[in-house]
Amino acid sequence: MEKYYIGIDLGGTFIKGGVVDSLGNILSCDKTPTESEKGGDRVATNIATLAEKLIEKTGISKTEIVGLGIGSPGMIDSKKGEVVFSGNLHWTHFPIAEETAKRIGLPVKLANDANVAALGETKFGCGKSYDNTILVTLGTGVGGGVVIDGRLFEGYRSAGAELGHAVIMAGGESCTCGRKGCFEAYASATALIRDTKRAMVADKGSKMWEIGGLDKVTGKTPFDYYEVDESAKTVVDNYIAMLGTGLTNLANEFRPEAIILGGGVCAQGDTLIKPLQAFLDKEIFAGEKGPQVKLLVATLGNNAGLLGAAALWM
Amino acid sequence: MEKYYIGIDLGGTFIKGGVVDSLGNILSCDKTPTESEKGGDRVATNIATLAEKLIEKTGISKTEIVGLGIGSPGMIDSKKGEVVFSGNLHWTHFPIAEETAKRIGLPVKLANDANVAALGETKFGCGKSYDNTILVTLGTGVGGGVVIDGRLFEGYRSAGAELGHAVIMAGGESCTCGRKGCFEAYASATALIRDTKRAMVADKGSKMWEIGGLDKVTGKTPFDYYEVDESAKTVVDNYIAMLGTGLTNLANEFRPEAIILGGGVCAQGDTLIKPLQAFLDKEIFAGEKGPQVKLLVATLGNNAGLLGAAALWM
Repeated sequence: MEKYYIGIDLGGTFIKGGVVDSLGNILSCDKTPTESEKGGDRVATNIATLAEKLIEKTGISKTEIVGLGIGSPGMIDSKKGEVVFSGNLHWTHFPIAEETAKRIGLPVKLANDANVAALGETKFGCGKSYDNTILVTLGTGVGGGVVIDGRLFEGYRSAGAELGHAVIMAGGESCTCGRKGCFEAYASATALIRDTKRAMVADKGSKMWEIGGLDKVTGKTPFDYYEVDESAKTVVDNYIAMLGTGLTNLANEFRPEAIILGGGVCAQGDTLIKPLQAFLDKEIFAGEKGPQVKLLVATLGNNAGLLGAAALWM
Repeated sequence: MEKYYIGIDLGGTFIKGGVVDSLGNILSCDKTPTESEKGGDRVATNIATLAEKLIEKTGISKTEIVGLGIGSPGMIDSKKGEVVFSGNLHWTHFPIAEETAKRIGLPVKLANDANVAALGETKFGCGKSYDNTILVTLGTGVGGGVVIDGRLFEGYRSAGAELGHAVIMAGGESCTCGRKGCFEAYASATALIRDTKRAMVADKGSKMWEIGGLDKVTGKTPFDYYEVDESAKTVVDNYIAMLGTGLTNLANEFRPEAIILGGGVCAQGDTLIKPLQAFLDKEIFAGEKGPQVKLLVATLGNNAGLLGAAALWM
């Protein structure tokens, strides 16, 4: 008998869900407002209602569903099935897994959203040839997830894999976590935009001013001007060096088979990946004597969370 | 029936071995020269001969021995039971596990020496209340081992847990691995001695000169003069800040329950541990909202490797 799974990507604004088979095919998919301002019970009800609708759409029986997985923002205790703390959801110690299970009548597992995305990309995305991977998402911050031997690694009480919050430049740029010099403070899209703006301010003749002003800067800007503007080139080269430094650290500490990069910056494709892979190959511990670490670009996009949440049951 | 295990600590000069019970009691213990200059087969014979002698000493039967574990320096492929590369042993791709098994007639497991030490301290030393630990050894270099859910984490092809080789100061001090600014280049005893010498050279009036000259400097020197000499105090404070930075990184990435510190510098006890714990508590991601990470000092000394090697079978 084919088995099915429900994956829920719980966001601050929307709950996205899908019924998934064991090959990662999404049989039905929908979303509904989170309404976290109405409290945790309401969110649990919204998840359950969405899940019932998704099951109905596929025409399969609830008895064929192995379980429901939730990927949630914030600090999670996956063993307890509890959101310990989430600014986005305004929760402290909310037992979302249990509350959802009560309503849907299915067993529920919970994990952090960055972690389940790593599991999704590894099971069903660009990492599916590998059992040992790290997903690093370059967005507003730097998110991370670690898969070891095909299973999610979360650290004690699921508090590990905060890969963006390792200092790579002691005393350096301020990070949102309160420390100075974190990987996130150099490798996030936010950091890339900050450094692009600084470079423009320092170089009034930069061609990057053509975009119309500092408020028009995105992570794409310095890449667009890489070939024609020295300041843009410097920004990108420095970004790649700092991103490469953090990735090499992770390679030495965890030694995965592949590191998967996600987030908007990855739209740069080979312009980003080729020099990064060269940096990593050169800097990695023991060089060619050890197993190499392959850099990949995430392929599942917004579905990584949903698929990874479902994969918590596989 | 009680079960027994043989642990072998394979060093460049000596092979140390012991018969161990499941509680970590060492029933017999001895050492023999490694003789790696005579080739890998000779080393395998020496391990087997030592093991036979150890079994004989205890008076137990070989059938009561579950297996033999070896902790070896160098890059190890523990699945293949092979030393991929070791400068100390002058080996490239030597199948020491198989060669030893042939000679002793027992199953043999192999792992890196820093990794088995972590397992030893976690099963039988100061970490025995915990299932998730990291051992960081502050010696000539910075060695590391990671235990997750009571089992050794080694990374793909056992090439992970190179915890000393993560950059914490991009562009900083040169490291033995070829990178600049590694944790090892700031937190090893070698780094502490380097910085002490630099401080003395820069401060001709430092009381530290009482020791008789730069060649008398050890990792103990700046601690001995901490209370009475400003330069010594600066060296120690900086050392603790950089060591604390690297440890906090590991806490955020792996989130163990405890980090165990080993190596000569730990003889400083609370002078080192108290400010380090305060640093970690302040800097760790999510502060008091997340699970705390306890700093401990290793207690097994030279037996950590032998016990950890035996524990590969437990």
